[in-house]
Amino acid sequence: MKKIAIDAMGGEHAPQAIVEAVLSLVKQLPQTKFILFGDKNKIENCLIGVKCERIEIVNTTEVIDDSDEPVKAIKQKGDSSMVVAAKYVKDGQADALFSMGNTGALLACGIFIIGRIKGVKRPALMPTLPSSSNKLGFNMIDVGANAQSKPEYLIQWAKMAELYAEKIRKIAHPRIALLNNGAEFDKGDALHQEVYKKLLKEDLNFVGNIEGNELFSDKADIVVTDGFCGNIALKTLEGTSQVIVHEMKQSLLNNGIIVKLGALLAKHGLQSLKSHFDVARYGGAVLIGLNAPVVKTHGRSDKRPVYYTLLQIDKMLDEHLIDEFKKYFLNNN
Amino acid sequence: MKKIAIDAMGGEHAPQAIVEAVLSLVKQLPQTKFILFGDKNKIENCLIGVKCERIEIVNTTEVIDDSDEPVKAIKQKGDSSMVVAAKYVKDGQADALFSMGNTGALLACGIFIIGRIKGVKRPALMPTLPSSSNKLGFNMIDVGANAQSKPEYLIQWAKMAELYAEKIRKIAHPRIALLNNGAEFDKGDALHQEVYKKLLKEDLNFVGNIEGNELFSDKADIVVTDGFCGNIALKTLEGTSQVIVHEMKQSLLNNGIIVKLGALLAKHGLQSLKSHFDVARYGGAVLIGLNAPVVKTHGRSDKRPVYYTLLQIDKMLDEHLIDEFKKYFLNNN
Repeated sequence: MKKIAIDAMGGEHAPQAIVEAVLSLVKQLPQTKFILFGDKNKIENCLIGVKCERIEIVNTTEVIDDSDEPVKAIKQKGDSSMVVAAKYVKDGQADALFSMGNTGALLACGIFIIGRIKGVKRPALMPTLPSSSNKLGFNMIDVGANAQSKPEYLIQWAKMAELYAEKIRKIAHPRIALLNNGAEFDKGDALHQEVYKKLLKEDLNFVGNIEGNELFSDKADIVVTDGFCGNIALKTLEGTSQVIVHEMKQSLLNNGIIVKLGALLAKHGLQSLKSHFDVARYGGAVLIGLNAPVVKTHGRSDKRPVYYTLLQIDKMLDEHLIDEFKKYFLNNN
Repeated sequence: MKKIAIDAMGGEHAPQAIVEAVLSLVKQLPQTKFILFGDKNKIENCLIGVKCERIEIVNTTEVIDDSDEPVKAIKQKGDSSMVVAAKYVKDGQADALFSMGNTGALLACGIFIIGRIKGVKRPALMPTLPSSSNKLGFNMIDVGANAQSKPEYLIQWAKMAELYAEKIRKIAHPRIALLNNGAEFDKGDALHQEVYKKLLKEDLNFVGNIEGNELFSDKADIVVTDGFCGNIALKTLEGTSQVIVHEMKQSLLNNGIIVKLGALLAKHGLQSLKSHFDVARYGGAVLIGLNAPVVKTHGRSDKRPVYYTLLQIDKMLDEHLIDEFKKYFLNNN
């Protein structure tokens, strides 16, 4: 029986969205147990009388919120849903951790409680993002777990992302590119020039540099980046799409009745645009390099992203991804 | 008489778009002379018989194109439109340089031919970008002139951008933010932590860190960034908006006749969206820190961006911006 530890208190729609996702999955995943950590009363209220021996509740009394300083919070809020859930994973009472709470605190739980895989220098955060012509999208690693990166970190991330893409996304020989400020081999600062050289020497399908404007262009299945630039690129991408969608709505609503009518007629087309950029189906961002799958979705997520993220975690357990990572680092250190 | 040296051969629509812009401006700017560098026959063909003593053509026989390696190109193509134009500026025969050719080569012309202002450590590239609620947009510096940046460079860029925003964009006490991976003062890698501390000590209206998703949010009039991340952020921003606009068109065209009709009715609304993100009216990206205004627009630009960029250059000359820079560095070194 696979066991997923679920921080039921993180995120704007907790625990409702989380419990709903679990209820949708409990029949679909008969070999999986869902352990929900949080305020027992609140969780039970969302369960609306459903009883299932594969849904367990562990009552916790504290919650880490977004304003908490990560490392301090995991030390001081020892009975928080996130920390207790992480301890279950550490002690082997659960196999994986899900949360949509404070990203920094989850990272701290991952590093200080669950622990790194032996040989991994730095864990990294890896989401799956949409591509304009490839339904499988692409992975970007690291998008912000590390403010300061060294060349050897990026090589390890590339390798782990490759294994993830092969095992979980079922992409044979995934194409790996380096986010850089130009296409040519000698582009970038000292860090990126060094990473380029190292990637060439690895047994990876390295396809060269990729620029910010090509991220959606299906040039790569995996984009490797230092955590600082990766964070800025990801947030710029999110901010740009949000502002355009917002302005599009305003433009269609505030330009008179004809435009409004047109927008109504075009609704189906605009919805197909939305579904094109629907990232929920890809699941959450994986905190890669830890002794167990630790995955997070956006704090604003409703049921749907949670549902897909739990499916993603279940698949990672089915495919024994962490064992694959361990095997690799045992043979390459 | 102000004199603008114009590389008439760079960009996809050269020399047509460039000559058209000059023809539109020649009456509007009676105190300005336009010196066009390039293939005399081609330029004269675009001039369609118009004669004006303030439009001069300097025939050149070579063109630097996008595939040329910048430093090599300016050495080997001594009779290229860009290099000859830059030499006119260096020799005082012109006061400013416009080009929409190879950015790297223009940067090389700026540094090696026109030269840096005494005291400026590194020139930087600064475009004006749209904001969601402020018609004046914001400046971002550096977006890629430097792959490797040091803290002191960013401080100088902040200062020059401040003078630009005050003199040219007429913003009093422009708000300056640092592009970083989080809001708190201790965010970022060593470089950005150091820059944060230094910016606090300067006589600038420093408003703290800004994240990638806040770029459009009118939190700052100037965003300071190292050239590597700035390049990635700018290109990510461009790529994201291009892909969304492309997919939006596809969604509206390929979802049946009703959607198409809706799109037709909503056209006016969608055009207002387009004008919201119209960056042409801001002019071009300034190569800041040189002994003369050097400004470039995108190689794909048609007449309109060229028109606004030439206006921008003219304003920089009217306001004696370079003298302001020189004065600052004379007193602060």
